[in-house]
Amino acid sequence: MKLKVGDYAGVGCIVDSCLHCSACDDDLEQYCEHGPTLTYNGMECDGVTPTFGGYSDQIVVKEHFVVKVPETLDLKGAAPLLCAGITTYSPLRHWKVGAGDKVGVIGLGGLGHMGVKFAKALGAHVVMITTSPEKGRDAARLGADEVLVSRDAEAMARHAGSFDFLLNTIPVGHDVNPYLALLKRDATMCLVGALEELTPAVNGVNLIIGRKSIAGSAIGGMEETQEMIDFCAEHGIVSDVEIVSIQEVNEAWERLAKNDVKYRFVIDMSSLKAAA
Amino acid sequence: MKLKVGDYAGVGCIVDSCLHCSACDDDLEQYCEHGPTLTYNGMECDGVTPTFGGYSDQIVVKEHFVVKVPETLDLKGAAPLLCAGITTYSPLRHWKVGAGDKVGVIGLGGLGHMGVKFAKALGAHVVMITTSPEKGRDAARLGADEVLVSRDAEAMARHAGSFDFLLNTIPVGHDVNPYLALLKRDATMCLVGALEELTPAVNGVNLIIGRKSIAGSAIGGMEETQEMIDFCAEHGIVSDVEIVSIQEVNEAWERLAKNDVKYRFVIDMSSLKAAA
Repeated sequence: MKLKVGDYAGVGCIVDSCLHCSACDDDLEQYCEHGPTLTYNGMECDGVTPTFGGYSDQIVVKEHFVVKVPETLDLKGAAPLLCAGITTYSPLRHWKVGAGDKVGVIGLGGLGHMGVKFAKALGAHVVMITTSPEKGRDAARLGADEVLVSRDAEAMARHAGSFDFLLNTIPVGHDVNPYLALLKRDATMCLVGALEELTPAVNGVNLIIGRKSIAGSAIGGMEETQEMIDFCAEHGIVSDVEIVSIQEVNEAWERLAKNDVKYRFVIDMSSLKAAA
Repeated sequence: MKLKVGDYAGVGCIVDSCLHCSACDDDLEQYCEHGPTLTYNGMECDGVTPTFGGYSDQIVVKEHFVVKVPETLDLKGAAPLLCAGITTYSPLRHWKVGAGDKVGVIGLGGLGHMGVKFAKALGAHVVMITTSPEKGRDAARLGADEVLVSRDAEAMARHAGSFDFLLNTIPVGHDVNPYLALLKRDATMCLVGALEELTPAVNGVNLIIGRKSIAGSAIGGMEETQEMIDFCAEHGIVSDVEIVSIQEVNEAWERLAKNDVKYRFVIDMSSLKAAA
C-alpha cells in the first residue's frame, strides 16, 4: 500500500489506463496505447462513463493513480505540481538536463514558472525566454539566471546556437523557427503546451542544418509523478498559487483567459460547504 | 597520407571547413560553425572565391576532404554515395538503426533508394513509403520488405504507431502529420530533403502525444563518409545510376525535373574531351 489513513493523497490528470500495454509496462501510463482515462473531460475505460474531475471534496481513485504527497510540502502550492509540475519535470529529466546545460524555458505561465524552478534545481543555467520584459523581471525571482526577450532580434542573435535544451511552454500554435535558431547542434526543443498547428510553418532547413529536433511531451507516468513530488519536497519547490473559493471560479476563469494569475489558481474545496 | 598515387579519391559535397570549431572537432564538418565550404555554389573560407563543383576532370582539394574509394566498388555507382549515400547513411547510424527495428523510408528517389539499401544492410525491417504504387514495385528490388502507399488511408492506419524510425527523403515542403502518426512512442522522423516550410503545418499534438520527434540531418562528416563508403564496399552497395555525357546534361536536367531517373545521373567526365 502506498498510503495509510491520514496521509496526503495526490490525484493528477490521469485516473486509469490499461496497465498492460508497452507504454504502461514502461511506467508511462500517460501514453497508454488504449488511451489513458483523464481525470476531467475524459472517459473511463468502459468508454461510456465520463469523468468529472476533482472539483470535489471526495474522489474515488485506484491506488495506482495516486501519489503520496510529502507532509513537508505546502498543500496549496503542491496541487498544481500534479499537472504543471510533472508536465515540465518529465521532459527535463527525459532529456537529461543537468549541471553545465544552458536551458531555455519559453513562456512564463503556469507551466513555464515550474520549468524555471525545476531546471534551476537540476543545476542548469536557466534562461527565461518571453515576449514580455515585465515577465522577465519575475523570472529572476523564480530562479532564472537570465532573461531573453524573444522580440529583441539582437538579443536572440546573441544567443543563437547556444542552448542545450529548450522547454517550450507556449500553450497555442506559434512560430517556432526563431527558437530553433537558439539550439546548439544536436539539441532538442520540447513542446509541452502547443496542442495546435505550428504556424507560420516550421522550415525543414532549421532542423537539417545542425541536426536539431522538435519533440513533444505530455505530463508524466505515475512513478515519475511520485519522483517529481519527492524531488519537490527535497528541494522546497511548490507552485506559486492564488487561492480562490468555488464561488470565485467564474471570475478566476476570466482572469486566467487574460493571463492574469501568478501562476496557478487553486480552489479551496472547503468553500464548497459554503456554497451548499 | 590517406591516399597514394593510383588510388581512387572521392570528393563529396564539402571541400573545406574551419577545422577548429566544436562541430569540426567532433568530425562533423558539415555543421561547421563558420559554415562549411560546399563543393558547388559555395564560397571558399576567404568568403569571396566561389566554388565551381566537380564537373571537371581535375580538382584540387585538401586531403582532409577526400575519401579513399575502395577499388572493389563500381566507380560509376560510387559517385552518388558521396552525397545521396552519406545523407541517408548518417541519420540511420546516428539514430542507431539496426536489427529488430522497423524503419520507413519516405520517398523513392536518389536519396530514398539509398535509404532502403542502407537500412536493409543495417539489418532493419524496411518499409518503403511512397505515394506511388509503381515506385513501390521497384522498392522490393532495392531491398524493401514492405511497401506502404501513403495515399492509402487504411494501410496508413494499419501501420500507425509501429515505426522505430522514419527517414523522410521528400525534397520539398509537405504535410508531415500523417507520417508522425506512423511513429512509435519516443521515435523520430528525420528529414534529409525538405529544406522548405512544412505545410500544412505540423500539429504539436502529434509530437506531444507519444513524445515523438521531428529531426533533420545534413550529409555527414569526412570520417563518417569514409566509414559509409567502406560499408558500401563490404556490403556490395552502390547507387543505381544512369550514365550521361556532358553533351546530354541539359536533357538529363529536364528528365530530373520530371523525376525520370533511376536513381541518379552520373556524368562521364571523359566526354568533356569530345566537347572541347
